[in-house]
Amino acid sequence: MNQLEKLKKAVNEFLPTSIENLQGYLSIPTVSAQNKSISETVEYVVAMIKDLKGEVKVLDDLGGNPVVYAFFAAGDQGDASKTLLFYNHYDVQPPEPLNEWDSNPFEPTIKDGKLFARGVADNKGDLVARLSAIKALQKVEGGVPCNIKFLIEGEEEIGSPNLEPYLKKYRELFQADACIWEFGGKDDKDRISMVAGIKGMAYMELTCIGAEIDMHSSVGAYVDNAAWRLVLALGTMKNQQNEILVDGFFDGIKEPTESEKQVVANLPFDEKAIARLYGLKRALITSRKGVDPREAMVFHPTMTICGLESGYTGEGAKTVLPKKAMAKIDCRLVPGQDPNYIFECIKKHLLVHGFDDIEVKLINGQKAYRSSFHHPFIDHVIQAAKEVYKNDVILAPNSAGTGPMYIFGEQLCLPIVSTGVGWAGSKAHAPNESIRLQDFEEGIVYIAYMLTGFSDALTEKKDTVVIKK
Amino acid sequence: MNQLEKLKKAVNEFLPTSIENLQGYLSIPTVSAQNKSISETVEYVVAMIKDLKGEVKVLDDLGGNPVVYAFFAAGDQGDASKTLLFYNHYDVQPPEPLNEWDSNPFEPTIKDGKLFARGVADNKGDLVARLSAIKALQKVEGGVPCNIKFLIEGEEEIGSPNLEPYLKKYRELFQADACIWEFGGKDDKDRISMVAGIKGMAYMELTCIGAEIDMHSSVGAYVDNAAWRLVLALGTMKNQQNEILVDGFFDGIKEPTESEKQVVANLPFDEKAIARLYGLKRALITSRKGVDPREAMVFHPTMTICGLESGYTGEGAKTVLPKKAMAKIDCRLVPGQDPNYIFECIKKHLLVHGFDDIEVKLINGQKAYRSSFHHPFIDHVIQAAKEVYKNDVILAPNSAGTGPMYIFGEQLCLPIVSTGVGWAGSKAHAPNESIRLQDFEEGIVYIAYMLTGFSDALTEKKDTVVIKK
Repeated sequence: MNQLEKLKKAVNEFLPTSIENLQGYLSIPTVSAQNKSISETVEYVVAMIKDLKGEVKVLDDLGGNPVVYAFFAAGDQGDASKTLLFYNHYDVQPPEPLNEWDSNPFEPTIKDGKLFARGVADNKGDLVARLSAIKALQKVEGGVPCNIKFLIEGEEEIGSPNLEPYLKKYRELFQADACIWEFGGKDDKDRISMVAGIKGMAYMELTCIGAEIDMHSSVGAYVDNAAWRLVLALGTMKNQQNEILVDGFFDGIKEPTESEKQVVANLPFDEKAIARLYGLKRALITSRKGVDPREAMVFHPTMTICGLESGYTGEGAKTVLPKKAMAKIDCRLVPGQDPNYIFECIKKHLLVHGFDDIEVKLINGQKAYRSSFHHPFIDHVIQAAKEVYKNDVILAPNSAGTGPMYIFGEQLCLPIVSTGVGWAGSKAHAPNESIRLQDFEEGIVYIAYMLTGFSDALTEKKDTVVIKK
Repeated sequence: MNQLEKLKKAVNEFLPTSIENLQGYLSIPTVSAQNKSISETVEYVVAMIKDLKGEVKVLDDLGGNPVVYAFFAAGDQGDASKTLLFYNHYDVQPPEPLNEWDSNPFEPTIKDGKLFARGVADNKGDLVARLSAIKALQKVEGGVPCNIKFLIEGEEEIGSPNLEPYLKKYRELFQADACIWEFGGKDDKDRISMVAGIKGMAYMELTCIGAEIDMHSSVGAYVDNAAWRLVLALGTMKNQQNEILVDGFFDGIKEPTESEKQVVANLPFDEKAIARLYGLKRALITSRKGVDPREAMVFHPTMTICGLESGYTGEGAKTVLPKKAMAKIDCRLVPGQDPNYIFECIKKHLLVHGFDDIEVKLINGQKAYRSSFHHPFIDHVIQAAKEVYKNDVILAPNSAGTGPMYIFGEQLCLPIVSTGVGWAGSKAHAPNESIRLQDFEEGIVYIAYMLTGFSDALTEKKDTVVIKK
């Protein structure tokens, strides 16, 4: 039996225990947005790590929900000169709307080979899979093949507002040679989908207050309408071709490299499947404009209205001239863009266009991050995945989603790849979130197997890396 | 004691009974939007009319809430060749938001000489005042000086959707020489404020549906955003100068006559008082543009956004790309404009500008109406008001508000003036709606006194009218 087979066997033997651990973890409703069950969850995580004889520290001296640090030293046969860092978060999205769940979101339920619960795909399943991989290596190899660290935070679902100070203060503690990010999984054709980066975000709220009270709509003949003011202001920020018209918005964007472009040109993309999935009423914007949707997804920043609110929105007619109007705007950023600068550009744009009556608030700002494709770690995670999954592996330069990856890249200067145990139907953030138990099992094996070759991969090619970075 | 003094004395004597009648009427929560207490209210109205020996018919053969017809034949001393019609409605606005009321909206409360209750100013107080005027004339003169009719409907607050068929079928029944409309009162300087017309309305809902489900906002890179589509569509309909850009919107507008213009130029208007009242954050649109706000109020059509709704509008950030966006638009129309034509213009405008993904629904359409200023009835109501109130009387060609006046004008071909017992602080449609008891008493006297000269006024100048109409 080769090493991979031994790992598979071991994982399969203790799989029921892993699932049980995961179910216990999922039973805790760790909703960070509602500040629920934080200390109970931290205790559970600490116990799982101690069970595997890991060293653990609960960091809470800088405010926010505690950050859990875990350390597993390389075993006697291992290479203590190399360290891999796992990033995970123990908090989950709110489960609402509850009536759209087929089972209780915090009573983990197995059905048709799938495990349903809030947070199972994002991101509790991945932490348990990674800890189970360590267990497998301890059983098969007598220890782990390199140093392994974990950073497990509790505020990812609310934008990681307190993470940066922890990473700055504890930079030495978390120092590593490479990082495996929190999420990932299989696509709709069961190909392994990974990303080596993430888009940034500038999430803003625009508010126009025209008066102190709602008025009868007949005064629209001479009184400003906050809703019109907001609509007209937004109308200057984008055109019908979906082009962003804010001066400075595109400043500093780093052009993707040739290898990134090549990878993106080869990403799978099924427009019809997407149209079916969402029930779209019109062709994709990119198709209408003759733009490659894969390029748009990975390389283009966006500006999306996430919410609009003003006046009367009930049934029928109410003739009110609203005192206030509000819009929520989500800009997805690419490397080189700075959320604070984008915020300033939008404020300036509004002033220049005569909208000094519109206030802008930056709610959430995160920079984008892309790891260099030329790091041997990147090749290693892909190669290991091909061997374990026996399927295509698709690595995008960055996801269209967002996370605190930039902070890691900046503070720890290391390559990052995101991979996990999700599937195309995981429904992260939505009702009936799930993972497939087979993906969970395979994911444990994959992490364990990837770890066995990690140190060698980095040692062999170290020189190349330095030159190319 | 002259006639006016006799009427004053009589009204003052039975005032407590009138207030009691009104309080009973106000205790019934006749909220048409919620279909509440309709038959109970109709019974109460019928009883009040029968108490005064009026003839009454409850018309309900054409659907909707019943329309009450009342008739008081001219007394022995009166002139049965002339008929005055009163228009009232027995329904009221919803009382919400309830927590902003200082007393229960359906437990009429007297405080500091004011009577507080939902519907007291709009429009239950006026009906009781008019019936009390008839009572005063019966006591002082032994009967009423001309024929008097009432049309009291129960759907004014929901746009009078069923009134036109009743007026068409029962045109003969409601035929009259002139009409006193439902509302009016004193302005902030206690001048008597009347209108001889009303603006029309086209209230529309615009909806964009981009998909069947809400999406993660990261797909904004290639998927249409319903909120952006709606915002951009609205942005083509008005500019920053508050000018309406819809082709055809101004078609057919009847230019105001010279006398209407003169009257409007002399209307009182206190920009500072308005800014204080509403707590406005910017100068009036009209001031910025150098337009007379009185002209805008009376002669210019408007297009107001009454409501906007899309996606996430709660606290903080939710990164959603909403499947749907909705706007409510209220266009106030002037004579010559047709709500159905406006509706067609807006639909066409959206198509021409590339917004075939936006659906428009006409929720409420009413034409504007203006009585000719050259009718002796107009002079008479003003003259009588000056004599009773001993204060300035301001008659505007039309109000900025809306009502079913056009149907009356078209079906019954008669001059219409609106006057009532409200005051500047009445807060119709808002919490803590009130009338002042002194205004109520004066209003009864005014209606009674106006009725005594009605027949003569019309007879003397009848010829002039026919020519000028």
